[in-house]
Amino acid sequence: MKFDVFGIENPLIDLLAKVPDEFLVRNELKKNHMLLVDESRHRFLLESLDGVEVRLEAGGSCANTLLGISQLGGRTAYCGKVGGDEHGRTYISSLEAAGVKSYISSNGSVTGSTVILVTPDAARTMNTFLGACQELTPEDVPLEELKSSHIMYITGYLWDTEGQKEAATLALRTAGAEGVHVVMSLADPFCVVRHKEDFRDILDRYVDFVFANQEEALTLTDTDNTHEAMKVLRQWCSGAAITMGANGAYVTQGDEHIYLDPYPVNAVDTTGAGDAFAAGFMYGRISGASLFQCGRQGSYFASRVIQQVGPRLSGDIRRELAEVLDDQRP
Amino acid sequence: MKFDVFGIENPLIDLLAKVPDEFLVRNELKKNHMLLVDESRHRFLLESLDGVEVRLEAGGSCANTLLGISQLGGRTAYCGKVGGDEHGRTYISSLEAAGVKSYISSNGSVTGSTVILVTPDAARTMNTFLGACQELTPEDVPLEELKSSHIMYITGYLWDTEGQKEAATLALRTAGAEGVHVVMSLADPFCVVRHKEDFRDILDRYVDFVFANQEEALTLTDTDNTHEAMKVLRQWCSGAAITMGANGAYVTQGDEHIYLDPYPVNAVDTTGAGDAFAAGFMYGRISGASLFQCGRQGSYFASRVIQQVGPRLSGDIRRELAEVLDDQRP
Repeated sequence: MKFDVFGIENPLIDLLAKVPDEFLVRNELKKNHMLLVDESRHRFLLESLDGVEVRLEAGGSCANTLLGISQLGGRTAYCGKVGGDEHGRTYISSLEAAGVKSYISSNGSVTGSTVILVTPDAARTMNTFLGACQELTPEDVPLEELKSSHIMYITGYLWDTEGQKEAATLALRTAGAEGVHVVMSLADPFCVVRHKEDFRDILDRYVDFVFANQEEALTLTDTDNTHEAMKVLRQWCSGAAITMGANGAYVTQGDEHIYLDPYPVNAVDTTGAGDAFAAGFMYGRISGASLFQCGRQGSYFASRVIQQVGPRLSGDIRRELAEVLDDQRP
Repeated sequence: MKFDVFGIENPLIDLLAKVPDEFLVRNELKKNHMLLVDESRHRFLLESLDGVEVRLEAGGSCANTLLGISQLGGRTAYCGKVGGDEHGRTYISSLEAAGVKSYISSNGSVTGSTVILVTPDAARTMNTFLGACQELTPEDVPLEELKSSHIMYITGYLWDTEGQKEAATLALRTAGAEGVHVVMSLADPFCVVRHKEDFRDILDRYVDFVFANQEEALTLTDTDNTHEAMKVLRQWCSGAAITMGANGAYVTQGDEHIYLDPYPVNAVDTTGAGDAFAAGFMYGRISGASLFQCGRQGSYFASRVIQQVGPRLSGDIRRELAEVLDDQRP
């Protein structure tokens, strides 16, 4: 086994800017939404931010998760596509510096990036230009590395373009044939709306374990309650986690059904809560923890990340986790 | 089968008064607590309320639940003890008017009552003088009626005096021998602290299904998380419900494990939320509903009762329930 978790998704550079609410209004942006935009709109938004400080970070949901797993001691690898520009080089080096093995290919396009507008209420309104991401093709997936991984991890964001879909489908088929455990995050509620039928089919055919927040789960399963959503998810997958923000989380696998208490915290910025949950949970999985411990680790990391600004944790989180879980052992 | 639910507990008259916070401070009362007081302290508190309007209502946790079940169409009976005074007669007639068959005995003592001090923040601070309640004895329990009931329902409040304990234990043994389904509510967290060992023993020996709020469940099982608490409760009982306020509820029975979403409401007064949950849930049980529907009915009633002042619902709640559940069917 070469890697504990092999992830495929969109390498995106985050471009963060603090703006007043009025900026959203002026640009007809819906607060808290993630919008896919084309290059000219993306450039227009950046130009509108003239004079505003723009912070640059390597982002992307799947990469956030892999980074967390890597920080905890897991062996991770990441596949995606960037352009042959400075953003692309920055992305790859930041991943590798964090211990995530890069299988990122590059081409002559522009590296994808997300303009993240942070309003004074800490809400994040995102405008993503996928750029090179959408040019990922089946040839970009290193199948031998994938085959020698314990878990393959993908997110729903891959279904936004045809090339990515093909690459993801090849990876899913390969993982299935080779007994690689397939874990999927539904990504975001709008992504679920865009690809509802595809996601249902994929979960049913390929996915062993699915992460969803409550809104994603309800949307995908066409119900108004979590219990029904879980029942439907479990008709497709052998396990599922539905995260419910301040209400905790509900995870099930085989015959085990576990309600997870939330950690009581003051949320500062909920970006990356789902990514952090997935990181803590999957690290538990690869280190042989019980479903309950996996869930607690996920909940703990989610609680940590929402107490700071930005989706990635710093510091010795491995040690911190060990202490916290030890403290709380009944 | 004569009754769907046969309840035993403390018939208490509620004496409600609106007071400023300063009243609690002056009388050294801890907000939101239920305190057992003796007759002289009780009289002192009532005298201190001179000039304040005091509203009188028939109360008691178990009676609240039976009333709810009766309103929904269930056949209920109630056993307890009152004094030979006006309060006692009022209590019995109010129960019977609500369709609950009274097996309340009376003696020469004073009927128990609770001074409920409602501060401007809607908190309720309770001072209960048990009075005649505590003189309930095994002879007061109508065993033939109990035997021909589907469910026997008790609350933890019965463990505060020896006579009540004996009466409850006789009832539990009789129910067990006759195959009557035994359901218990842990009553309140302080009650659990007072009788932790007794409750563990009773749950293990006699109780089929237990209702607890989160604090009660954690206290009883000496843990800091809901999942562990549920695991321990299920070592004792074949089913359990842990209500978690705004976080929803978690109910399990046999192999079924269900997380219940909360109904999104603005809480006005949380008094009686647990009683209402038990009413909705048990009515579901006696009408043959699934565990999920039982839980939803319980959650719905709890959400209704916290949107009003006081623990009892009025209006055609049976029809309301049918409409609500019908609306929400996926």
